[in-house]
Amino acid sequence: MSTAINTHRRIVLAKRPQGAPTTETFSLQSAALPGLGEGQVLLRTLYLSLDPYMRGRISEAKSYAQSVGLGELMVGATVSRVLASTHPEFKLGELVLGNTGWQDHAISDGSGLSQLDPQMPRPSWALGVLGMPGFTAYTGLLEIGQAKAGETVVVAAATGAVGALVGQIAKIKGCRVVGIAGGAEKCRYAVEELGFDACIDHREAGLAAKLADACPQGIDVYFENVGGAVFQAVLPLLNVGARVPVCGLIAQYNAQELPSGPDQSPLLMRALLTKRIRMQGFIIFDHYDDRYGEFLKQMSQWLADGRIKVLEDVVVGLENAPQAFIGLLEGRNFGKLVVQMAA
Amino acid sequence: MSTAINTHRRIVLAKRPQGAPTTETFSLQSAALPGLGEGQVLLRTLYLSLDPYMRGRISEAKSYAQSVGLGELMVGATVSRVLASTHPEFKLGELVLGNTGWQDHAISDGSGLSQLDPQMPRPSWALGVLGMPGFTAYTGLLEIGQAKAGETVVVAAATGAVGALVGQIAKIKGCRVVGIAGGAEKCRYAVEELGFDACIDHREAGLAAKLADACPQGIDVYFENVGGAVFQAVLPLLNVGARVPVCGLIAQYNAQELPSGPDQSPLLMRALLTKRIRMQGFIIFDHYDDRYGEFLKQMSQWLADGRIKVLEDVVVGLENAPQAFIGLLEGRNFGKLVVQMAA
Repeated sequence: MSTAINTHRRIVLAKRPQGAPTTETFSLQSAALPGLGEGQVLLRTLYLSLDPYMRGRISEAKSYAQSVGLGELMVGATVSRVLASTHPEFKLGELVLGNTGWQDHAISDGSGLSQLDPQMPRPSWALGVLGMPGFTAYTGLLEIGQAKAGETVVVAAATGAVGALVGQIAKIKGCRVVGIAGGAEKCRYAVEELGFDACIDHREAGLAAKLADACPQGIDVYFENVGGAVFQAVLPLLNVGARVPVCGLIAQYNAQELPSGPDQSPLLMRALLTKRIRMQGFIIFDHYDDRYGEFLKQMSQWLADGRIKVLEDVVVGLENAPQAFIGLLEGRNFGKLVVQMAA
Repeated sequence: MSTAINTHRRIVLAKRPQGAPTTETFSLQSAALPGLGEGQVLLRTLYLSLDPYMRGRISEAKSYAQSVGLGELMVGATVSRVLASTHPEFKLGELVLGNTGWQDHAISDGSGLSQLDPQMPRPSWALGVLGMPGFTAYTGLLEIGQAKAGETVVVAAATGAVGALVGQIAKIKGCRVVGIAGGAEKCRYAVEELGFDACIDHREAGLAAKLADACPQGIDVYFENVGGAVFQAVLPLLNVGARVPVCGLIAQYNAQELPSGPDQSPLLMRALLTKRIRMQGFIIFDHYDDRYGEFLKQMSQWLADGRIKVLEDVVVGLENAPQAFIGLLEGRNFGKLVVQMAA
């Protein structure tokens, strides 16, 4: 074929971060791309997804998945185009969703790849609203969190990939929705564009008091994707029978040591007991067998009906992925962060 | 009737405790007993139940139920005999379960009273294995904890009113059961008499290491009725998908301040997330409508079949209730603590 490519670019883990990752954590390399064997596809990465869970992958500490080794390719979900194929199931020009990582191209035997609907309005949505973050929001809010009409739902990172969808789904379901976000512009967007009932800027003073004002009936579901100070403000407002799906803890991912004392955990335990709260961690990869099809159908319908707004933060160029990822952990993204590498 | 009684004894809350309650927390009083009005019953208390939740009732801080006021009668579940009745539903000589508190006699209009089966082997069981603690163990382990055959269940206060039943029910259901208790004699009893697979004395050094040894497959259900250091030892051993019903936190009820730092709560949150743990507080009073009948039938059958051993710690005399209650919070009881006031 005429599409033979000999070298391409990839980003590997250069150094494990102590605390927040820096640009030295990553290394952009030029690498040889082997020729296509039998039953393989050559993929051009169009979009790379950047997600908070990746912070866990570059730590040595065991999380729920294996760490990326030093010198190894950074992991990540991607949308790619098939540039060449000797695989019977994939054809030239098709768009596929995969986990081919932080690189311009990939060679795959097809495992872990799935074709995308060519009618999809934007292929990058497969990494966001119609992909892992969307399914996370849907499952966490409705299955783990059991949010019901009339209840008050609080979600932090309100303009993040997951939070923006949690809030919008909760509004569709008839909940009162209060967001928490970093900065006035994000809060304005959450209320005016995404339809949240209120949104509080956690960078300003008085988070706890403002949150209490915004939740006159207390909090029935707190969708936890942040941890830290936000959770401390939420805890006293949780109602009897509240549910706390624990989806992420971005505020503590870069921490190198525990916060100074006193130990707050007895307060948490006491609140769980006296208010019969259910707190449940979940990892969306456990749930694909159960309800992914239902989610995809429902979310596609909401999108078609204009009931969900999609908020994407698109960074162009693989070389900019490290800086974008560092910013994600600092809350500098506005919506689902993706790296666009080709059109 | 010939059973007119003019005065009797009652114990009131004299002083809110700072930290652990002392004998000065309570006051034994002589009080007038009014004559019987229309539609009332005069009750002689036979057994008074002493339970850890009462520590919450004598605090000013709002828990899930109203505090006992200063000078007010101490609350508590009782088994009583009807000494006189002008109430159509209660007859002289009947045994009733009620919430008539720390006193020799009570006058009741019948609300909150229920007749006990006169064939019950021991009336005090209505306060333990067939009452609130038994239902707590059953619901917490099977409904909230979802314990299944082959799983490892850990329960602290292994010879306490609830813990001894949690462990025995878990054995009936085919679980591996590891208890934690204070002292060698309690541990011996849990293993040799109650059939636990292992029991660890938390007063000896090396709790975390011994617990790890006793749970080679990790922990699937931790029935939390203690909190504090025991929970710290359990947390690293919890398996993916573990359930933690939070039933009580006796280790922290007397605490006057939070433990010194660092703040351990980020570790707890991280464990919940990465191991998809479900922690859920519950108060048994929420559950009577649902499954109490099923519980009573099942537990009565297990007792009849000799599959459950009943462990009661009987203290004689109302005047000894304060000291017995103080000891309960220190773990000095051995089995379900009841005060016997008459036969």
